[in-house]
Amino acid sequence: MSKKFLAELISTFMLVFIGTGAVVFGNGVDGLGHLGIAFAFGLSIVAAAYSIGTVSGAHLKPAVSLAMFINKRLNAQEFATCVAAQVLGAILASATLILFLSNAGLSTASLGENGFSTVNAAGAFLFETIATFIFVLVIVTVTSASKGNGKIAGLVIRLTLTLLILLGLNITGLSVNPACSLAPALFLGGEALSQVWIFILAPLVGAAFAALVGQHLLETQKVR
Amino acid sequence: MSKKFLAELISTFMLVFIGTGAVVFGNGVDGLGHLGIAFAFGLSIVAAAYSIGTVSGAHLKPAVSLAMFINKRLNAQEFATCVAAQVLGAILASATLILFLSNAGLSTASLGENGFSTVNAAGAFLFETIATFIFVLVIVTVTSASKGNGKIAGLVIRLTLTLLILLGLNITGLSVNPACSLAPALFLGGEALSQVWIFILAPLVGAAFAALVGQHLLETQKVR
Amino acid sequence: MSKKFLAELISTFMLVFIGTGAVVFGNGVDGLGHLGIAFAFGLSIVAAAYSIGTVSGAHLKPAVSLAMFINKRLNAQEFATCVAAQVLGAILASATLILFLSNAGLSTASLGENGFSTVNAAGAFLFETIATFIFVLVIVTVTSASKGNGKIAGLVIRLTLTLLILLGLNITGLSVNPACSLAPALFLGGEALSQVWIFILAPLVGAAFAALVGQHLLETQKVR
Amino acid sequence: MSKKFLAELISTFMLVFIGTGAVVFGNGVDGLGHLGIAFAFGLSIVAAAYSIGTVSGAHLKPAVSLAMFINKRLNAQEFATCVAAQVLGAILASATLILFLSNAGLSTASLGENGFSTVNAAGAFLFETIATFIFVLVIVTVTSASKGNGKIAGLVIRLTLTLLILLGLNITGLSVNPACSLAPALFLGGEALSQVWIFILAPLVGAAFAALVGQHLLETQKVR
Repeated sequence: MSKKFLAELISTFMLVFIGTGAVVFGNGVDGLGHLGIAFAFGLSIVAAAYSIGTVSGAHLKPAVSLAMFINKRLNAQEFATCVAAQVLGAILASATLILFLSNAGLSTASLGENGFSTVNAAGAFLFETIATFIFVLVIVTVTSASKGNGKIAGLVIRLTLTLLILLGLNITGLSVNPACSLAPALFLGGEALSQVWIFILAPLVGAAFAALVGQHLLETQKVR
Repeated sequence: MSKKFLAELISTFMLVFIGTGAVVFGNGVDGLGHLGIAFAFGLSIVAAAYSIGTVSGAHLKPAVSLAMFINKRLNAQEFATCVAAQVLGAILASATLILFLSNAGLSTASLGENGFSTVNAAGAFLFETIATFIFVLVIVTVTSASKGNGKIAGLVIRLTLTLLILLGLNITGLSVNPACSLAPALFLGGEALSQVWIFILAPLVGAAFAALVGQHLLETQKVR
Repeated sequence: MSKKFLAELISTFMLVFIGTGAVVFGNGVDGLGHLGIAFAFGLSIVAAAYSIGTVSGAHLKPAVSLAMFINKRLNAQEFATCVAAQVLGAILASATLILFLSNAGLSTASLGENGFSTVNAAGAFLFETIATFIFVLVIVTVTSASKGNGKIAGLVIRLTLTLLILLGLNITGLSVNPACSLAPALFLGGEALSQVWIFILAPLVGAAFAALVGQHLLETQKVR
Repeated sequence: MSKKFLAELISTFMLVFIGTGAVVFGNGVDGLGHLGIAFAFGLSIVAAAYSIGTVSGAHLKPAVSLAMFINKRLNAQEFATCVAAQVLGAILASATLILFLSNAGLSTASLGENGFSTVNAAGAFLFETIATFIFVLVIVTVTSASKGNGKIAGLVIRLTLTLLILLGLNITGLSVNPACSLAPALFLGGEALSQVWIFILAPLVGAAFAALVGQHLLETQKVR
């Protein structure tokens, strides 16, 4: 098990455990509030990126790793390692959350999963594609050689995730992250699991599109 | 279609789609809250400025482009291109928002438009002039050669927009952006359209005044 | 009228107009919320410091100017000019706020003034002294040569003011700024005016103490 | 009494007085809100770190000092001095808070202490261990030579504390700080005092674990 695998696993664990944990223990929109949820996910990127993520790059999301792979900033093996670490880290995070919920005698029927009720499947797919396009475009740009923005990259990425949750919480719960959607769905089954393909596929499509636009408009294939 | 035109179009699309979309899908002040709305618009500047905006400068607003033109940081043709891209991007954003609202079966009677009810037209005009003056003065200063503040310019501009929404949401909804006011008004018609001249003219007046004050007090005509 | 006088006047106008305006038009704690008010005042420092304040240093507060004077970073004439500009800017801001309130047909009985009801005068005095001590200690440090923190000084100062409002809003409304307390009190008279001496004197005491501690522990007399 | 002792005492006083004071005077979750509390504690780190903390390093927490000691960035005597200053500073902060509460005629039955009601002692211990592990891992990384992040370290640490309070407020109130838990408990006695061993021991365990992981994965023993 390489250092990078371990680092990506721990940092994705941090993202998913803190983000979904804050939603569940903070009583969601009624307690923590829409803005509080947006902050919790955004800030978990800061914690991950500026600690253990300094080893692995802290992609945290298969969609981000895919864009890095398309921009030739990861090779095929590194890409596979990253995704495996992310999925495993997210599953461990959901399991840990269930552990704490059980200890507290609280329901485990909600684990911060994604889903949609107002828009239909097509609307959810399109929304996740656009949202991930924006999110990944920011990431590949702000970490690139020519357009990059040094040491504040982690802060910019965090603010962008916070922003997208402000927009998307009532539409799909905002995924942009296949690993973070898959893990709760595996434990919950039911609707969360039957809808999860959208939160895996749409972010990958949006990320691929962002990588291509980035490459042609923004020279994002050059690493900082 | 030049790269800069495309970049300015995409970045204005991001600003207007995310900002107004968050307001509408977030259930406005009752849901997202006053502070949440202020964050959504402010952060959409971060997303735009640190991604696609690195190509075009991400003016995002005709008022900002006007100030840059007055400070001779844009020539007449660049100014016209910017404004055309901004208006087109904003219209596409409102159309996309309507698409998602229709998909979700929600009302399209509110699209995050500007307006005023407590103050009268003179009050609204004066307020938008002062607010845009402050906003554009920050922008031309923080991106200038002599008083500029390097890589955190995008963050400072974002915080200033958040601030002005905190102040102006209950006064005019805060425009400071003719394109962002025009696009929803075109789709909505009625009062939004009949009041929109204020949100086009007053920001341009405020921006012109900021460019002049900046030029004489702050040497903002020098590009960083 | 020197450039610096004008710049300090405009930047204090921005601070007081936006801060108190957001409180009044945002419906205070019931509307904007405690956190929203704390953000509005904090962010108005960002807007002032990174625009017009780049000319004058944007002290914005007589208490800050006093500390700079004690640390020999202002001479007596500069100190007097600063305070005069701040008081005048704050008075213009309160007058402008009244103009907008009248235009909107709203009550002008509350202008974001300071006061105290739970603690007594001694408690209010002690609290303002401690709060200003902390605030000014951050300012003189973060702008000093040896301990300073470059271009993010404005952001750090903003966050500190936000913090102190989170603490003090229910105690005294948090002044730490004689000019910002004096201006509304002059228009309101009554209790606001009879209590205003505390919000003039206590910040000056706290600031003087901060300047002395800074000088001996932190070498804050050296300008960055 | 050395300068460093005094600086660490004053900065811990600032952290505890402002953080717990904002909770108590801000009427907790019902007034300031979950997000407001998270901001108050986070921002108190900014105020401390960028002022008086520039002398002492502003560890503010025995758990942080322990990690620094394990990473050989403090010797045994410095570690003992730091912890003594932190405990004394926190006690003075709680005493000052009681002073203001008494002056205001408010109850002193709640002083922002830690505790747990939903999870049991084992759950609380495990949670504080994980939370402190994350918190201290960020701190030792962001202040290290090889992975450090210059002048924004204070901002990153602040955002991480805000994040952890969003997650942990309803679980344990989030300590991660033995001194900040001990001081209110000493004044309150009862349940707060009988549970306080968890908030002393668990953070120390989490911090030690973070120091070891940091040392082997992230070279955190090298000072920036």
